[in-house]
Amino acid sequence: MQTTAAFYTGDRTFSIEQVDSPQPGPGEVQIDVAYCGICGTDLHVYQGHMDARVGSHRVIGHEMSGTVAEIGVGVAGFAPGDPVVVRPLDHCGTCPACKRGHQHICQNLKFLGLDTDGAFQQKWTVPVHTLHHLPEGLKLAHAALIEPLAVACHDVGRGKVQDGEDVLVIGGGPIGMLIAMVARHAGGVVTISEINEHRIAFAQGLGFATINPAQADAAKTVKKATGGKGADVVFEVSGSQPGVELMTDAAATRARIVMVAIHATAPKVDLFQFFWREIEMLGARVYQPADYEEAMKLLSGGAIDADAMITDVKGLDQVGDAFAELAGNPRAMKTLINCNGEA
Amino acid sequence: MQTTAAFYTGDRTFSIEQVDSPQPGPGEVQIDVAYCGICGTDLHVYQGHMDARVGSHRVIGHEMSGTVAEIGVGVAGFAPGDPVVVRPLDHCGTCPACKRGHQHICQNLKFLGLDTDGAFQQKWTVPVHTLHHLPEGLKLAHAALIEPLAVACHDVGRGKVQDGEDVLVIGGGPIGMLIAMVARHAGGVVTISEINEHRIAFAQGLGFATINPAQADAAKTVKKATGGKGADVVFEVSGSQPGVELMTDAAATRARIVMVAIHATAPKVDLFQFFWREIEMLGARVYQPADYEEAMKLLSGGAIDADAMITDVKGLDQVGDAFAELAGNPRAMKTLINCNGEA
Repeated sequence: MQTTAAFYTGDRTFSIEQVDSPQPGPGEVQIDVAYCGICGTDLHVYQGHMDARVGSHRVIGHEMSGTVAEIGVGVAGFAPGDPVVVRPLDHCGTCPACKRGHQHICQNLKFLGLDTDGAFQQKWTVPVHTLHHLPEGLKLAHAALIEPLAVACHDVGRGKVQDGEDVLVIGGGPIGMLIAMVARHAGGVVTISEINEHRIAFAQGLGFATINPAQADAAKTVKKATGGKGADVVFEVSGSQPGVELMTDAAATRARIVMVAIHATAPKVDLFQFFWREIEMLGARVYQPADYEEAMKLLSGGAIDADAMITDVKGLDQVGDAFAELAGNPRAMKTLINCNGEA
Repeated sequence: MQTTAAFYTGDRTFSIEQVDSPQPGPGEVQIDVAYCGICGTDLHVYQGHMDARVGSHRVIGHEMSGTVAEIGVGVAGFAPGDPVVVRPLDHCGTCPACKRGHQHICQNLKFLGLDTDGAFQQKWTVPVHTLHHLPEGLKLAHAALIEPLAVACHDVGRGKVQDGEDVLVIGGGPIGMLIAMVARHAGGVVTISEINEHRIAFAQGLGFATINPAQADAAKTVKKATGGKGADVVFEVSGSQPGVELMTDAAATRARIVMVAIHATAPKVDLFQFFWREIEMLGARVYQPADYEEAMKLLSGGAIDADAMITDVKGLDQVGDAFAELAGNPRAMKTLINCNGEA
C-alpha cells in the first residue's frame, strides 16, 4: 500500500514522497497519524544543524497523535481504531542507565523521528511499548501537545514544585509556556522571563507575571517580589548566557534550578552561588511513562490552554511552508501538521 | 586578666598581643582554646584576599578545640572544665533562609573567626548555641579536626553517598581527603583526582585509588573502572576549570555532583551534559549541628586517620611562621596551633 511521507532532505527542504507501508512486524503497531507538531528540535534539523545525526533522507516529527491502523503479531492491549500517542523513545535495556531504571536516558537511546523515521507521514509503524491510550473525549489535535507537555511535566517533577513556591521560567517559548502552566497547576506562583514582546503578551494573556530582562533587572525584580528571598524553583529554558546568569542571580537559598535548555556550548556559570546558597541544579531530559499519563490528565482536565498554544495547522504537503513560516514568525507558538486530512 | 592573641594585621603578617579577657556576658561561654587548625580560608586571609571582609586587626581561626573556662549568666548545660568545640556560625534567625530551617546558610550569617574575632588566642568567648560537648576520650588535638570533618560530613550528606557507589573526589587537599574518608565510611568506592605528587602519595597511603589528570585521561580512567558508567557521586573540591570539566566528563547518568570548592570566578560548565544525562549538582557550604555530631562519632570511632592528617603543630607565638610554611609546603596537610601550650 502506497502512502505519503515528508522526508527532510537537507538544507531547509522537504520532499513529499509516496512510500510503501508494509504490515507491522511482531510487537509493532501501525498508526494512522492524525496530527504532528513541529518541535524546536525539528526546527534545528530543518536548519541543518543535525544532519550528522538524521542524514539527508529522514522522516522527522514526534509530537503526534493518531489512531491504530493495524497491529503486528504478539501485540496485546491495542486494537485498530484506538486513539493513541507515541512516547518516541527506544531504549537498549542493557546499559548502566537502563539497569538503574532510567530507560528514558538510556546511554544508547534511539529517539524515534530523529534516529529512525518519524511521524510526518500518513502511516507510522512503532514498537508497541511506545504507545499510550488516549483518554476518552480528548481531541486528536490537542493530543499532539502531549509529547511537549510530558516534557514540561517531567521538568516540573524534577524541580519538585510545591504549593505556594515562587517559580521563575527563563524563556517563554512553547516548552517554557507549558512548564509555566504545569508549575502553576502544581501550586507554583509563576513568573516568565522573556525578551520577545509577542511572547510576553502571550504569557500575560495566559495570566502569568512577566519580566523583560532587556528592560528591567530581572533578578532584582524577582527578589523584590519575593521579599528578598528569590525564586524557589528556576527553569532555565533559554539556552543563553544571560539566562544562565539570571538562573543563579534570581535563585533563593537552597533553590532548585532545572536545566531544560540544550546548551550547545558551555556557558560561564556562577558556581560560587551554588556553594554560597546551596543551590541545586537538576538536568531534565524528555520524559518517563508517568509523565505521559500526567500530561494526558492535565490536558483532559483543562489545566492547559491547548487552543491558545496551537497557533497554526497545515497539511502534510505544506510541511516545508510550515517550517519556513514557523522559523521566521515571532508570534508563532505551536504549528501542527494534519497528516491525514486538510489543514 | 591579660591573655595572648594573634591578630592578622594585613599582608601576610600577624601581631602577637596581650589583650583583656573580660568575663563572658549573658548566654556566652569563655573557652581556653587548646588547638586551632589553619583552614584554607585562613590562608586566603593571610594572603590578603579577604581584607575587605576581615579588616586589618582581626583574630582569625575557627577549627578549634578547648575546655570551658567560664560561663555567663543564663548558660545551662556547660560547666568549667568541659571539653568542647565551637560550630562557628551565628545566624540572624529572621531571614528567609533561617525561617526555612537553613540557619547554616543564613542570608546574614556571621562566621566566627572572620566576621568576628576567632580562635588563634588563649581565651575565646562565644555564644553558647555554638558549642558541642566532646565525647569522652577524644584527644583535644584530634578534636581540632572536627570543624573541617563536619564540612566533609555535610558534603557527603548532600551527595547522599550510598553503599557500593563509585565516588570521585576532585582535589586532594585537606577537605578533599576528609571527604574521601567520610565517603568511604559511607560505603563509597572512592578515587581521588589530584596533580600534586605528595598528595597522591598521601592518598595512596590512606588506601585510596588515585588519578593524576596531568598524566592520564581522568574521565576515561573513571569510565573504564566503572564499566562505562562513570562516578555516581563527584565532589568538586579543586576550584579549577579542569576540575569543572572533569566533574561532568566523569559523571554517570543521574550522577550527583557536590560543589564544595569556592569558585571566585565563573568557570565554563558543560550544561549540555546536565541535560543529556540528567546530572544533579548540589552546592554544599559549612555544616549543620548533626554534621558536628557525625564528625565526632567518626573521629571517636576511628574512621578518620587524624594523626596522618595533622602534619605540623606550632605554638601561638609561631603563628606567622606556621602560615608561611603551610603556604609554601606541598607536603603539608593540616597545621595546628597549640594556643595554650608548647608546640
